[in-house]
Amino acid sequence: MNDYQFILVKVKGNFVWHTHHETDEVFIVLEGAISIAFIDGEVRLSKGEMYVVPKGVEHKPYAEEECHIMLIEPRGVVNTGDSRGELTAHNDVWI
Amino acid sequence: MNDYQFILVKVKGNFVWHTHHETDEVFIVLEGAISIAFIDGEVRLSKGEMYVVPKGVEHKPYAEEECHIMLIEPRGVVNTGDSRGELTAHNDVWI
Repeated sequence: MNDYQFILVKVKGNFVWHTHHETDEVFIVLEGAISIAFIDGEVRLSKGEMYVVPKGVEHKPYAEEECHIMLIEPRGVVNTGDSRGELTAHNDVWI
Repeated sequence: MNDYQFILVKVKGNFVWHTHHETDEVFIVLEGAISIAFIDGEVRLSKGEMYVVPKGVEHKPYAEEECHIMLIEPRGVVNTGDSRGELTAHNDVWI
């Protein structure tokens, strides 16, 4: 939509701690449950719930069981934010 | 999120034909079903389905039974687009 992308992701296990310095990031849970850890706490989101991680806030998503989520963010955002590594996705797979 | 708003709407009956000349508009159905008529056809969306109405495309949402939807669009977009009238909402009710 406009210059935003809607990304469908299956999540299981731990993601890396990272920060998106340039944008907020929306999580919507489609199936299962996901937790997002912050430096000072965490949120747990279940199916049908939505959360906005504000720009510049360090966070680490994780899910004990497989979880299906939709992310909304500006096109071209790197999934691991400022923390490049083996979990960094090539941002070019469209369905 | 950033300069976008997420709007929860209950829909029943006919909305007006209108166009958003400046932006795409995302519909996500939370409960029930909604139809969106276009000049050359229509789509019917059920719970859990999503649709992007492209910028500049004339459309008329309608629902026979009450339907709960979430709209995503830039902050400040007028609900009736270029068709001001009694269905135009004041864009200042936040929950």
